[in-house]
Amino acid sequence: MPLPLTEQDADALVGTMGRRAREAARVLAGAPTTRKADALVRAAGLLRARSADILAANAADMARADTSGMAAAMKDRLRLDEARLEGIAAALEAVAGLDDPVGGIVDERNRPNGLLLRRVRVPLGVVGIIYESRPNVTADAGALALMAGNAAILRGGSEARESNAAIHAALADGIEAAGLPRDAVQMIPTTDRAAVGALLRAQGLVDIIVPRGGKGLVARVQDEARVPVLAHLDGINHSFVHASADRGMAEAIVVNAKLRRTGVCGSTETLLIDRAYPHATALVAALLDAGCALRGDRESQALDTRMTAATDEDWDTEYLDAICAVRVVDGVEGAIAHIAAHASHHTDAIIAEDEDTAARFLGDVDSAIVMWNASTQFADGGEFGLGAEIGISTGRLHARGPVALEGLTTYKWQVLGTGQIRP
Amino acid sequence: MPLPLTEQDADALVGTMGRRAREAARVLAGAPTTRKADALVRAAGLLRARSADILAANAADMARADTSGMAAAMKDRLRLDEARLEGIAAALEAVAGLDDPVGGIVDERNRPNGLLLRRVRVPLGVVGIIYESRPNVTADAGALALMAGNAAILRGGSEARESNAAIHAALADGIEAAGLPRDAVQMIPTTDRAAVGALLRAQGLVDIIVPRGGKGLVARVQDEARVPVLAHLDGINHSFVHASADRGMAEAIVVNAKLRRTGVCGSTETLLIDRAYPHATALVAALLDAGCALRGDRESQALDTRMTAATDEDWDTEYLDAICAVRVVDGVEGAIAHIAAHASHHTDAIIAEDEDTAARFLGDVDSAIVMWNASTQFADGGEFGLGAEIGISTGRLHARGPVALEGLTTYKWQVLGTGQIRP
Repeated sequence: MPLPLTEQDADALVGTMGRRAREAARVLAGAPTTRKADALVRAAGLLRARSADILAANAADMARADTSGMAAAMKDRLRLDEARLEGIAAALEAVAGLDDPVGGIVDERNRPNGLLLRRVRVPLGVVGIIYESRPNVTADAGALALMAGNAAILRGGSEARESNAAIHAALADGIEAAGLPRDAVQMIPTTDRAAVGALLRAQGLVDIIVPRGGKGLVARVQDEARVPVLAHLDGINHSFVHASADRGMAEAIVVNAKLRRTGVCGSTETLLIDRAYPHATALVAALLDAGCALRGDRESQALDTRMTAATDEDWDTEYLDAICAVRVVDGVEGAIAHIAAHASHHTDAIIAEDEDTAARFLGDVDSAIVMWNASTQFADGGEFGLGAEIGISTGRLHARGPVALEGLTTYKWQVLGTGQIRP
Repeated sequence: MPLPLTEQDADALVGTMGRRAREAARVLAGAPTTRKADALVRAAGLLRARSADILAANAADMARADTSGMAAAMKDRLRLDEARLEGIAAALEAVAGLDDPVGGIVDERNRPNGLLLRRVRVPLGVVGIIYESRPNVTADAGALALMAGNAAILRGGSEARESNAAIHAALADGIEAAGLPRDAVQMIPTTDRAAVGALLRAQGLVDIIVPRGGKGLVARVQDEARVPVLAHLDGINHSFVHASADRGMAEAIVVNAKLRRTGVCGSTETLLIDRAYPHATALVAALLDAGCALRGDRESQALDTRMTAATDEDWDTEYLDAICAVRVVDGVEGAIAHIAAHASHHTDAIIAEDEDTAARFLGDVDSAIVMWNASTQFADGGEFGLGAEIGISTGRLHARGPVALEGLTTYKWQVLGTGQIRP
C-alpha cells in the first residue's frame, strides 16, 4: 500500500492536472459542436467494443467489494453488466445529440454611440466532479462537461477504481480520436483522500465542483470547498393540498410524489393539508393504504389511527423512504410559512384549483422549483426537457434546479465598435 | 473607545441582522416595481431635505480625517458638498427608473406530457456590501440591491461613519415611508473590523458579498469570504493593434483607452503591437506625446528613445497611472497567447480592419469583456446601457462584466401542471 499523499503532494498533483485542464479547455472552448459530438460517439463505440475488458475490471471491483463486506445497495450501484454498459454508451450518444449552448447569443443591444454589445455563451472552463460508487458517472458527467466545452477533472470512489479507469480510458481515447485534447477529461490517478482536499481548494484552476453522491459527500464538499460548488444537500420537498384541490388529482399526485420512488431527491417528504380541505381523511388513507408510514401533528393524527406522532425533527427530515410527515396548516399562508421555515429550497408543490392561490404559492415559495398540480417527482433534468442533468442545484447563484449543458456555461460580453472612444 | 468585538459577538450581531434581512427580503421579493421605485424617490427627497444635517455629519468625518492626517485623494472621496449630494439623490431617482427584472420570464417550454415549464427571475435574496471611504456607495449600492428586490446589509468604512449613518437614515426612512420594511437596507452599527469577518462567513444568511473599494479590500474579501463574492481584483487590460488596423483609429483608441482616466478599472495597462503593423513608431509616439510613460520589451523599445525597459513584472501590473507596458507580438495568435498568460480577464480589445482576425480575437480571448475597434474605457455598466452598476465581475459564475439589476437576481423554475404524475 502506498504512503498517504501529503497535502503538498496532493496540491502539486492537482495543480499539474489543473494547468493541463486549462490548456485543454482553451481548445475545447473553440471546438465545433460536431467534433465534440464525434468524440462522444466514438467513446460510445469504444465502450461497446471493450465491453469484455470493462466488465472484467468491474468484476475485480466487485470482488474487492465482496471481500470488504460492502452493503448490498452499494454493490448494486457498483455493478455493471452488458445492459448497464449499453445504457452508458447510449447516454453518451444522447448527450452528443443535445443542443450545444456555446456561441449562443444571450442578448444584444445597440448603444446610441453605435457600439453593438452582445452577450455570448462560453464554457465555464474547468469542472471538477467528485463522485462515489456509480461508475456510470465517469462517462455521464465527463460527457456533459465536454459537450458544453469544458475540461473535466474526475475523482471517483476507490471502490470503483478499476471500472472507472476502464470507462475513462474509452472516453479519453474517443476524445483523442476525434482530434480533441486527451486532457479534456482527466481522472485523478489516486484514490487517496488528500486529492479530494486539493481539488476542493484549487481556486483559479477549477471553476466549479460538482459532487455526485450521498449526503455525506455533498456535506463534506460544501464544507471544505473554496471553489464554488453546484449541488443540493437535501430535498425536503413539500406537497400542499389546498382547500380548492380536486380530490382525485390530489390523491393521485400526493401518492406519486411520495411513493413512486422514495429514494430520489424529488420525492415529497412533508404533506401539508389545508385545514379547509374537505377530503383530508381520504387523502391520508390513500397514502397509508399504499404502504406509507405517516407522522402527523396533533390535528392530522386525528384523521387516521394508523398515524403516529411527528416530532419537531420530522419537519426537517429527508426520509428517502416510505415515510411522510403530515401537518394541517391554515390555507396557503400557513403552507408558505411552514415551507419558509423548513424547506431545503429544492422542489415544492401546490395542488389547487384556485388560480390566485396557486399564483401566490408559485410567487412566494422561494425554492429552485415550484409546481402547481404536478408531482414533485418531475424534478429532473430529463423530465424538464434538458436531455440530461449534471445535478440539481439548491444554491441561488449561477444555476438553480436541474442543471444541464447551459448551466455548465457562462457568457462574455462582446463589444463591436467602429472606432468609438469614450468622451 | 469600546472594547473590540469578539468573533462570537460579531457573529451574533450579523446573525440577527441577517435573519431580519431574510424576513425583509421575503417581502421585497413580492413588492411591486412602483413601490420599490417610490421608496427610492422618497429617499432622494429626504436626502435633499436633510442636506444641512448630512453635510454637517460629513464635516465631522472630514474633521476626523484632518486630525488623523488622511491622504488628500482619500479625503476627496470622503468629501460631500451640495453638488455631490444632489448627484447622490439624482442617482437614486435614476435607479428608480430602471427596468425591474423581477418577474421577467427567462424562458418557457412545453413538455409532451402537458407540463408548462418556465424560468422566472427572482431576487438573489440578501446582498452584503463592504466599502471604504465613499459615502455615496451607501445610497447607490443600497438602491440597486433594493430595486432588484433584495435586502442589503451595508458595512461602510469607519472614516465615513457619520456621513454613512445620515445617508442610510434617509434611505431607510424613504423605504419605510413607501410601506416597505425598514430592514430592507440595514447598516452594521459598528465599524469594528470583526463585523466584516462575520459578514464574510455568514453562509446561509448572506447570498452574495460585493466589495467596493481598493485592491486591498477586494483581496481581503476574496481571501476570507465563505459567501460568494462578486468583484474584480485587477483590471490588467490589453489593447492589441493588429497589422490591418486603421492608423488614425488605432492612435485615437489607444490614447483614449490608456489616458482618458488612468485610475479606472477599464483603462488599458498593456499595449500589444502586431510585428506587421506598419505605423508602430507613430503609435507609441502618440502615447508618449500625450504624456504617457512607456515600458517596452526590447523590440518596442527600439521604436522611440523615450521608452524604458519593461521587466517581467510589468506584464502583470495594473498601473492605474499614466504608464503603459508595450510589447511587440506575432499577429493575433501572439496577442491571444500574451493575454492568456497575463490578463485579469476584465477587458481586452483588438483594433483591426480584418474581420476574421477580429472574430478570432473575440472568440479566443477569455475575458469578461472583449472589444473590437473600441476603447477599453467603455467597460462600465452605464456605457453598456445597464443604467448603473454594482460592480464589474471577473469571476466566471453567475454574472460577468458590469453587473446591474439583472445580476442581482436569479431565477426559479415554475412548473404548471394539470394533474400530471410521473410514470
